[in-house]
Amino acid sequence: MNRFQQRKKDVLAKQDKSSIGFWDKRISKLCEKINSFEEYYTTSSCSGRVVLMIDQEKKGPGLFEFVSHDVVGFEELWKEIKKLSLKDKVKFKQNQNRKFFICPNLSYKFKQEPPIIHVACKDLKNAEIILKIGRKAGWKKSGILSLGKNIIVELNCSWRLEFPLIKGGRLLGGGFVKEVVNKVNWNLRRGWRAISRLEEEIEKF
Amino acid sequence: MNRFQQRKKDVLAKQDKSSIGFWDKRISKLCEKINSFEEYYTTSSCSGRVVLMIDQEKKGPGLFEFVSHDVVGFEELWKEIKKLSLKDKVKFKQNQNRKFFICPNLSYKFKQEPPIIHVACKDLKNAEIILKIGRKAGWKKSGILSLGKNIIVELNCSWRLEFPLIKGGRLLGGGFVKEVVNKVNWNLRRGWRAISRLEEEIEKF
Repeated sequence: MNRFQQRKKDVLAKQDKSSIGFWDKRISKLCEKINSFEEYYTTSSCSGRVVLMIDQEKKGPGLFEFVSHDVVGFEELWKEIKKLSLKDKVKFKQNQNRKFFICPNLSYKFKQEPPIIHVACKDLKNAEIILKIGRKAGWKKSGILSLGKNIIVELNCSWRLEFPLIKGGRLLGGGFVKEVVNKVNWNLRRGWRAISRLEEEIEKF
Repeated sequence: MNRFQQRKKDVLAKQDKSSIGFWDKRISKLCEKINSFEEYYTTSSCSGRVVLMIDQEKKGPGLFEFVSHDVVGFEELWKEIKKLSLKDKVKFKQNQNRKFFICPNLSYKFKQEPPIIHVACKDLKNAEIILKIGRKAGWKKSGILSLGKNIIVELNCSWRLEFPLIKGGRLLGGGFVKEVVNKVNWNLRRGWRAISRLEEEIEKF
């Protein structure tokens, strides 16, 4: 067994360390397909997600407040936002038909991210091949992240939304959130279609 | 002169074909610095921008309605949104203190994008070097886009915002736009700092 195959064996034997703590089913079939080729193995993946999180410069653990890998409803999201506000002992104040949450400490943002896969490749030629297949299947924001011992290709789609949600304690546009839910779910579904298309393109390979 | 140097000469001799039609000054010094190395040349760049554009699946010309490479004020943005609405013969209707624009045809979105540079590299080793320098300077969303004859590295920062603005003729959250302007300008300034940091890191190289 060569070094690449040994690393592949080690990585695939590892337990899932993702923040959701279980396999992301919508992308696992695609990952299995990629892993069935001896030239590739996946190191991480996400089928797309909706996130409410603390908005700060520094990355770190404990920033995620809500994560959904499925389409969301406004009521569900709104409940999560209210939970968020209770958790931080936010005061609730009604003002001219607009609702403000008072929470001076934290800012939160909303993110909808497209599908993403990191693929370790045996050599550069294989990196180039999967990059091209990915682009063809609509994964337009793809690139090689690292060369050398570990050649990693990131396959990523482009359909994303991101905006601040709570700033200096004040909820920005609750009504706005209602309006963007459709777009969010549309983007998630586009991502799932891109996963299927990539499966098909890899099938042809 | 080898092939790489010939292509470099040809590309740098071309006129600016960007949508703004003039050099993006905040990033031109960095581009010049990169181009001063015989191993690299830049093929495109943007110092970061704020965009109001038609929101449709297919890319194409004529989608951009407003582009700013500088920080924006709410009043300025609002004027542009109103212009947009007039252009499309949008009817204006006042409803319970909320303003709706009626324009059944087009949807628009708001985007704030971080700085981006595309760098052609003489060989893979040089691609790896500039990728690492970029990451060190805070250009975290960077990767190699293509190998082969033209090795292109995309250097990109991660600070972006994107959300729908007008959908099915209705303006979504005018008040919301007001709230996100600060974040938008903050992100633009972060981008400019990343440009300076990359200049400094390249200086050390």
